[in-house]
Amino acid sequence: MIGAAHDTIVALATAQGVSAIAVIRLSGSDSIAITQQLFRGKKLTEQPSHTIHFGTLVDGDKMIDEVLVSVFRGPNSFTKENSVEISCHGSPVIVKEIIKALLKNGARLALPGEFTKRAFLNGRFDLAQAEAVADLITAETDNARQAALNQMRGGFSKEINHLREELIHFASLIELELDFGEEDVEFAKRDDLIQLIQKIQSYLRSLILSFDQGNVIKNGVPTVIAGKPNAGKSTLLNTLLNEERAIVSDIPGTTRDAIEDEMVVGGINFRFIDTAGLRETEDIIEAMGVERTRERMKKASIIIYLFDLSTETMDNIAKEEQALKALSIPYFKVGNKIDKADPALLENLKDQNFTFISAADKTNIQQLKDKLLAHFHITTVKTGDVLVTNLRHYQNLLQTSESLDRVLSGIDQGITGDFLAMDIRQALHYLGAITGSISTEDLLENIFSKFCIGK
Amino acid sequence: MIGAAHDTIVALATAQGVSAIAVIRLSGSDSIAITQQLFRGKKLTEQPSHTIHFGTLVDGDKMIDEVLVSVFRGPNSFTKENSVEISCHGSPVIVKEIIKALLKNGARLALPGEFTKRAFLNGRFDLAQAEAVADLITAETDNARQAALNQMRGGFSKEINHLREELIHFASLIELELDFGEEDVEFAKRDDLIQLIQKIQSYLRSLILSFDQGNVIKNGVPTVIAGKPNAGKSTLLNTLLNEERAIVSDIPGTTRDAIEDEMVVGGINFRFIDTAGLRETEDIIEAMGVERTRERMKKASIIIYLFDLSTETMDNIAKEEQALKALSIPYFKVGNKIDKADPALLENLKDQNFTFISAADKTNIQQLKDKLLAHFHITTVKTGDVLVTNLRHYQNLLQTSESLDRVLSGIDQGITGDFLAMDIRQALHYLGAITGSISTEDLLENIFSKFCIGK
Repeated sequence: MIGAAHDTIVALATAQGVSAIAVIRLSGSDSIAITQQLFRGKKLTEQPSHTIHFGTLVDGDKMIDEVLVSVFRGPNSFTKENSVEISCHGSPVIVKEIIKALLKNGARLALPGEFTKRAFLNGRFDLAQAEAVADLITAETDNARQAALNQMRGGFSKEINHLREELIHFASLIELELDFGEEDVEFAKRDDLIQLIQKIQSYLRSLILSFDQGNVIKNGVPTVIAGKPNAGKSTLLNTLLNEERAIVSDIPGTTRDAIEDEMVVGGINFRFIDTAGLRETEDIIEAMGVERTRERMKKASIIIYLFDLSTETMDNIAKEEQALKALSIPYFKVGNKIDKADPALLENLKDQNFTFISAADKTNIQQLKDKLLAHFHITTVKTGDVLVTNLRHYQNLLQTSESLDRVLSGIDQGITGDFLAMDIRQALHYLGAITGSISTEDLLENIFSKFCIGK
Repeated sequence: MIGAAHDTIVALATAQGVSAIAVIRLSGSDSIAITQQLFRGKKLTEQPSHTIHFGTLVDGDKMIDEVLVSVFRGPNSFTKENSVEISCHGSPVIVKEIIKALLKNGARLALPGEFTKRAFLNGRFDLAQAEAVADLITAETDNARQAALNQMRGGFSKEINHLREELIHFASLIELELDFGEEDVEFAKRDDLIQLIQKIQSYLRSLILSFDQGNVIKNGVPTVIAGKPNAGKSTLLNTLLNEERAIVSDIPGTTRDAIEDEMVVGGINFRFIDTAGLRETEDIIEAMGVERTRERMKKASIIIYLFDLSTETMDNIAKEEQALKALSIPYFKVGNKIDKADPALLENLKDQNFTFISAADKTNIQQLKDKLLAHFHITTVKTGDVLVTNLRHYQNLLQTSESLDRVLSGIDQGITGDFLAMDIRQALHYLGAITGSISTEDLLENIFSKFCIGK
């Protein structure tokens, strides 16, 4: 799959920048020997795996730094190859000098994700687990971290592989039938096959359903705050974020650019987007802002639509809701400035599923947050919970499920074994692509090139 | 010196940010035991020093991450205390969760520089070496790195300590004389003392002289590019930096704000500062720029003064140089636009120590760079070279030297032993402050608070 899997790669594994220490990582058959050429201290090539050695790194006459070198011997390393971690002083100049010297001595710069790719190719874990490594690193909430960790430690991989093997068994029986051609034998009992497919479908369905929540946990929720000018959108944004993020004034049309900021509420990353108020305007810049608001609303996961209850009428509210409904995006109706609202209006809106708040006084803000969380059915992800968070996995699961549906209806319609076998093979392909039992260099390239260098 | 030197401190040791791995560091008697409480894997408390162990970190029911834990047992660690390094996935969320769990189990957050401070207090190295650790991390050029590394590995420390001990010996002999009071004995031979002080002075002088170069190597050289409007200053900046850093136009007065950028030339970090052209102007913003140019020129280490040879006259050049001289800052006269210069003017300027360039055509730029380097007598710092780069050390060296001068002139004038002893004690104090043989909590606080957390 990969050209020369055993050449030695090197990269900085820690974040860029001035810090106490930085770690440079090597992997490949010669990684210990290459490091040894620069190292003054104990003979690294004679040291056991998982041991740490103090010494200095030199480049010819020049001493580069005092370092700690950790030695890992394959297959007991992350990549299953010989590996070295050099812990040096956290100076970008030192990191550069060390990597330069290692390159001079036979290492080459690692590509993005190449360490993890080697771990995958050498059988440390499957593709879905390898992808979880990247998700783990970029997790922005504790929930996202837990979902990625669970996936990295196995997640649905084992169960999918198990079901796939059972299905392979049936596929081979059916293909055997084909060999016997005219003899009308049936090695693969159709009832057993139906039962297996139903079992697989039920598992796939639970995974597919988990994606709604998994996607929200991994990617957060774009939440657009919309409404007429001066409804109090920027004030609500500031109140939600607990800081003066947006400029607030009494002048309608204050906000022109959409202002975004993120906040973790109940373990979920909400990306709140404050927008220009919706109105006809002759101010060109404001008009552009209004246009952008409409675009943002169409892309939102949820809209918080704000009504200024100190000025709105029942008629207007009804009209605005009609326009809102037309977007087909989930929305919450939120009545703002309740302290200044006409009690009759409040009474009329009582049963219309409003949340009544005062953004300025921070009244009922928690109630609004609770509604958001309840809408996304978010609970804390626990160790061991299996959630699909990856779009590629989700799409493959859907395609597997569709193929299996075709197998079931094929059996129902009594189609011949060769057509059944084709659909089963297709299902096996999509299932195998998830864990990487089936993979192409293009797919791997596509996945690992999104990793950071050093991982 | 420090309150509870053995409590366990924890901090992120690598740079902040998403990366392949991050390293969290603990030091203190309980660091291994505290880590053990979160660790699922081999029993860390039973593992030998300098070994690495794979396992998972948990906080109660919650699994935080898969990690590698390195165990170091005092005194064979950086701080000479029990220490642990936890290598986790490089996610800020994971780092936060791990540190939170460690704090819950008895560690406390480390103060800036506290690991290095403990290493110093526990006798790993002296104060001058500890300070070099910080310089090593922040070194911006390879020369600065080498100078800091040499200092960290001993530098002048050993020699200074040796000379200081010889001086202490004399001081105690002289103080012995004082005990004998009226008896007019002379335990400390004056000739030997003079010889010793001369030896010390000669060493101190070489260190003091090295500071000019050391300071340039550590802190770089602020280099102001000045001259009349449209002399080509911004073009020269861009040519020196090899990028389009400053906006260039034919309109005099294009540059208003001073534009700075750094470039390493011959191992030295030159901070080139492009300034507003010097002229009387009615444009208020430009006038402020001109005022700032004058201030920048006064603070420069060197001024590159640019003349537009396509328009200048001998008279004007003489006038400008007069103004330049008045600043008492070293300067280079650089004639720009030689391709458009009157040959008669060039002939007249021949012996006036000009560098003739064309910034736009990149003519003779290397010659200008060579002149800069030659001016600062910069050579490559080699492994083992001793250079004073630290202002505190420099000041203490100067003060030691002054005290010793007083001792010498005291002997010369035949002053009594008690006065001699006083000056020697003062010299010993300044000398001891360099390596930290003498230190106060205030001094340490002042030094280590400038370190980063985790170092």
